[in-house]
Amino acid sequence: MRNSFTVFPIGVVARQDDSIWIDIFDEYTDGLLGLKGFSHINVLFWFHENDTSEKRAVLQVHPRRDEQNPLTGVFGTHSPVRPNLIGLTRCKILSIEGNRIVIEDIDALDGTPVIDIKCYIPHSGAGSEVRVPEWV
Amino acid sequence: MRNSFTVFPIGVVARQDDSIWIDIFDEYTDGLLGLKGFSHINVLFWFHENDTSEKRAVLQVHPRRDEQNPLTGVFGTHSPVRPNLIGLTRCKILSIEGNRIVIEDIDALDGTPVIDIKCYIPHSGAGSEVRVPEWV
Repeated sequence: MRNSFTVFPIGVVARQDDSIWIDIFDEYTDGLLGLKGFSHINVLFWFHENDTSEKRAVLQVHPRRDEQNPLTGVFGTHSPVRPNLIGLTRCKILSIEGNRIVIEDIDALDGTPVIDIKCYIPHSGAGSEVRVPEWV
Repeated sequence: MRNSFTVFPIGVVARQDDSIWIDIFDEYTDGLLGLKGFSHINVLFWFHENDTSEKRAVLQVHPRRDEQNPLTGVFGTHSPVRPNLIGLTRCKILSIEGNRIVIEDIDALDGTPVIDIKCYIPHSGAGSEVRVPEWV
């Protein structure tokens, strides 16, 4: 029997009109010190609306829900149904005030639990070698 | 009381001599279909050796364990101690055979549980606007 791990939400995505922000819960606010030095963050969140054993058992999908795209393993996609319901999006920071990070955009619904924030550090010298399949 | 979420390992990092690979557990191998079309993956893993309530309570560190770097919130670092012990590394794929993904490098120990694999799709047009603090 393998171990499982427990993830706690550290904040939540909020959307209102054209504004999008992340509110970090009070007990985690100290973790934001120095984040203002970065222009971008990687936001890890939990696709909480898909948290059923059926959806977590899905291993192959048509990317972007387009039947014209080839059936692909979820690890070769950014599908929101996958064994561990972790979403990952790089976001541009517009401002940070207290426990609130205002961001330019994120592909997550209002109320989505945030599980980690990581400062974004660009990859050195990889650009042109990157290869992706035709459907991308 | 907030919900917590359960994460299951989908594979494991292995290192031997100069080789590094990820073995995906048999029941998740179908999730690899089509991954060969990508040159790089984002690997999400669990810092299992730090899974104590003490280490998960750490919110500020000196980046890269260098006291000369300013005390920084863990969300502004890639610290392996943080509330949710998720590591994220972009890896170059060398080969995929069956359930084994051979990669060029990863900053994770032999035996580290892998919790998700996401195909890497480059960000469009962001390069020069990215800003990072001096310690990076």
